[in-house]
This record gives sequence, C-alpha cells and structure tokens, in this order.
Amino acid sequence: MLALSGGVGGAKLALGLARELAPESLAVVVNTADDFRYHGLTISPDIDTLLYTLSGRSNRAQGWGLEGETWLVRDALEQLGADTWFQLGDRDIATHLLRSGRLAAGDTLSEVTASLARAMGIAVQVLPMSDQSVSTVVHSDEGDLAFQEYFVRRRCEPRVTGFSFRGQAEARPAPALQALLDSGQVSAVVICPSNPFVSVDPVLGIPGLWRQLAGLGVPVIAVSPIIGGRAVKGPAAKMMAELGLPVDAAAVVRHYSEHYPGLVTEFVLDTEDAALASELEQSTVLCNTLMQTLDDKRALARFVLQLAGC
Amino acid sequence: MLALSGGVGGAKLALGLARELAPESLAVVVNTADDFRYHGLTISPDIDTLLYTLSGRSNRAQGWGLEGETWLVRDALEQLGADTWFQLGDRDIATHLLRSGRLAAGDTLSEVTASLARAMGIAVQVLPMSDQSVSTVVHSDEGDLAFQEYFVRRRCEPRVTGFSFRGQAEARPAPALQALLDSGQVSAVVICPSNPFVSVDPVLGIPGLWRQLAGLGVPVIAVSPIIGGRAVKGPAAKMMAELGLPVDAAAVVRHYSEHYPGLVTEFVLDTEDAALASELEQSTVLCNTLMQTLDDKRALARFVLQLAGC
Repeated sequence: MLALSGGVGGAKLALGLARELAPESLAVVVNTADDFRYHGLTISPDIDTLLYTLSGRSNRAQGWGLEGETWLVRDALEQLGADTWFQLGDRDIATHLLRSGRLAAGDTLSEVTASLARAMGIAVQVLPMSDQSVSTVVHSDEGDLAFQEYFVRRRCEPRVTGFSFRGQAEARPAPALQALLDSGQVSAVVICPSNPFVSVDPVLGIPGLWRQLAGLGVPVIAVSPIIGGRAVKGPAAKMMAELGLPVDAAAVVRHYSEHYPGLVTEFVLDTEDAALASELEQSTVLCNTLMQTLDDKRALARFVLQLAGC
Repeated sequence: MLALSGGVGGAKLALGLARELAPESLAVVVNTADDFRYHGLTISPDIDTLLYTLSGRSNRAQGWGLEGETWLVRDALEQLGADTWFQLGDRDIATHLLRSGRLAAGDTLSEVTASLARAMGIAVQVLPMSDQSVSTVVHSDEGDLAFQEYFVRRRCEPRVTGFSFRGQAEARPAPALQALLDSGQVSAVVICPSNPFVSVDPVLGIPGLWRQLAGLGVPVIAVSPIIGGRAVKGPAAKMMAELGLPVDAAAVVRHYSEHYPGLVTEFVLDTEDAALASELEQSTVLCNTLMQTLDDKRALARFVLQLAGC
C-alpha cells in the first residue's frame, strides 16, 4: 500500500494503516512543498508530523510538534530579539539539526528521513515525495507568500487566489518511490484525507507521477478531508471558499477528477455526506472518516484496505 | 584601544578593559578561524566566548558556554543517534540559530555579531577579524584536522606539527576594523593573552593587517599567555613542546618578534617570569597576568592601559 500524505490528517490515516499492515507492506509518501528554512534550519513539517505520529510521540492536543515538548531555545531566541513566529520546540530542534547537518553534508532528504525514522523506531517506509526542493507559493490578496508565512506567520488570514509549486517542474519522485513504482509490488494507493491544494497537488504534480500511479492499474482510493462542509483541520475549507468552490466533499472529488482524470478509482466520503455522494457520477463509498481515536484510525484504515482488496 | 583576542584568556582581559574604559573607547577584534559548521549551524566559538563573557553570562567554572545552561536538545540529538561531541547547550543554540539564519539570509558575520552584542547588552564593539571565512587546519601526527576536530573531538591529543589557515590569503579585515585602522582614532593595540598559534596568528596573518597595525605608530602591547612555563588554559604549552619550542614566555616573545618584526612595542610577562624577561632583548614589563577574579582582570587592564598611555 502506497499512502500519499500531507501533515496531520494524512498522518492519522497513515498511523491506522501502520497498525493494520506489516511494516514492509506500507510506504508513506509525504508532501515536502511546505519545507522551508528558518534560522538556518531546514524544516520539513509534514515529514516531521508523520515521524512524530508514527512513533507515537506527537502532541495530539496541540495538533503539531511533540508531546511533552519544552521551549528553552525559543525563549532564548526571543531574548535575542529573533523571530519566533514558527514555534521551535527543544526536541523538535534536534530533528531539524540532524536533518540540516546531514543535508549540508550532501545526504539526500530521503536518506536523512530514513535515518530519522529508524532512530525513532518506525518500521514502515516514510519517503519524501522528492529529494529536489519544491516550495508552495500561496497567491493571495496580500501578494505571493511562502507557505509557512501564510500558514503559520499569517495564520491563513490572507485570501488565497491560487497556488504554485516552485521547483515542481524539475522535481523527480524520490528514488525509493520510483523504485516502488517500477517494482510492480504496489497493490493499492491511498490519497489520505489531506489538503488537496497544498498537500496532495504538490505530490501528484511531480512530472509524470500521477500518470505513473494511474498506470499501475491498482485501486487508487482518495479519502475526502472535507466532512459536512468543514475541514477537520487546517485551511482547506477556507481555501475552497476563497477559490470560489463549493465547500464540500463533492468539490474535492471534482478537483481530483478534473486534475488527474482517471486516477482515483474510488472516493471515500464521510457518512455525513451521503446526499452528496448520491449525486456524484464518480464511484464513491461512505465511511466514518473522522479520526479522533486510534480505533477510528484503524477502522478507516481497515475500510480502505478492504476497498483496495488488500 | 583595539584588543585582539581568541577565546577564554583574551575574553578575560577584554572584560577587564571593558570595565575600565568608556564603551566607545574599546573595540575587541576576535579570531574566527575556529568557526565551523556543526549540524548545519554556523558556530563562532571565540566570538561567543567574548559575547558571553562581556555580558556576564559565561560559565566560568566550566570555561566555556553559558552559566545555568541546559542540555535538552543535545540529549534529543543523542537519542536520534547524532554526533554530540561538540556540546550544544540550549541557550547557546539560540545564538547559533540566530547567526546561522542571518548568515544564510545574506548578512555578514560583522552585522550578526553586532546584533548579538546589542541583544546581550554589550556596549563595546565586538568585531570578527574578518567577514570572510578563515579556517584553522591543524597539521598533526594523525594528519590534517579541522580545528574543532582537534580541539574538542580529539581533546588536543594529536601531536601538532604546524598550522595553516584556509581562506586567510583571501580574507580582508572586517569593515569596522578597517574603518578603525583608517580613522586615526586607535590610540593603542593590545594582543590579549591568547594562543599565539591558533588565536592570534589567524588574526595577524590577514593580508596587510599586522603591517597596518604596526604602521599606526601607537603602542602595541602583547600579553603572554604562558606563565612560568604553563598555559593558563588550552593547548598552547603542549603545542609549543610539540613544535620544538621552549615552553616559556620568551618563546612567545620570539614568536611575535620573528613573525611580525617591529609590531609589538612592549611585551607583558608575568612577574613569575622575571628571570626570562631580563634575558630578552625585547622591551618587557612584568605584571601579575593570572586573571582569576574580576579585580585581577581590571588590574591587568589598568596596567596595560597605563603602559599604552591611555
């Protein structure tokens, strides 16, 4: 099973899948277009969310970062008059330092991510979508913003008008992802309930990638991140409204169908969205997709696996 | 007064001078050839020692780093299996993050150092010797070692055979240093009791610098870091022995006289070294140069200032 994921929402389903599958049967491909440099560190927020979630160390109440985190470095940065709009926890900084040092020494993001996963005791494969740098640019009524500037510093307040992904046209799938695509071993693909515009599009838009996925001839299942007209977390619903789209799961289905025609074989909508499902021409199935407990995550994972015939 | 300094020993005299002089009358020029990159951070150990000492925050018992430091990031790095041979304290990391981020954004080391000094409430000028990167290479019986590899990782154990300073030939004095040299306002120069080979030579060997200092026509006073055949701190004495030099203050005097003929107008030796002083042809004066208390530092500073006619 190949899972494509952004941050929190995707990580929840990835955790469910990790608990339901043998480690060698799951690879999670993670969006890296949120990655950025901050105080000289190279930070990969979505990869870290996956690593922290899969290793059972994520701060679930907060929705980001590590459980039991401390903030001594951030406080010291504040005392030095430095920017602290992106919250750097002390243990999180260790992750960024290891990554930054190894990237500076010439290792690839794939290699560093594999090392971090190993060090954190994660048995499933966690793969960056690409080892080349891709950066989401948010087009907004306040001009173009780097993703984290929009997302964290400006708390998603600017009205978005569109997105582009700098470097995407030159990016290649990460070597281990390409190897999986070439292996004939991928039995199914799941597009996790992540933001279609800024988490999934950066992955699927890597040149050739979505057509390769479609060409596998295996079930490709997309789980809607929109439930009953709301995003469970993050700015997806706000973005849809600002882009002039209906804020509902049907618009997510149409987004994937229009941009990647023929890719998704089955759309999973929440049971709350039964009415929408019945009006769509795409093949949809209903399930409880709100993942609050580990049981919820495992149940959705089992549903997806069953749907995929795994 | 222009003070040339390495780390701990130089910082002690610089602190004494800072307490005796109006802030605008003192500029401390700091060796940056110890600077290195570690886990993606750009670290300037001697500059940080100056900043921490002048702001009253240095850990005097330990001889490096900050008082009351904590080690949460280092412990987390260890858990990730990362190198931790260079001890990164949590508050110290904030300094490195600010520096690394601003250098990556295109600021110069001079600009970043000035910001850090301001943020730490330091009124005297703290200047890197150069904004260009200069790196000490330690030639040893174990081959060539980067300075921190030799100094921290290998605890100065390899036998040294010499030193070179990569990038020195292309380096220029930091702009504020050059401006001071051009200003006609420098009334005296003091070479602090720092390691002649790896703290002072990197500074004085910047093309044109020592001749410019000599050309100022002002008193240039060098304080020996060797007292009674021992280095107060650091590997200076061990290095001298390995280089085949007598381990005494006279060898320090000869080192400066041979490499920078005519530069130093007065050598300050410890009272313990009266016998050596009487045998040297260079002009020497005696003083208690062991700086254990703040009073010791201020007393040596006053002695140097008096000698310089300041």
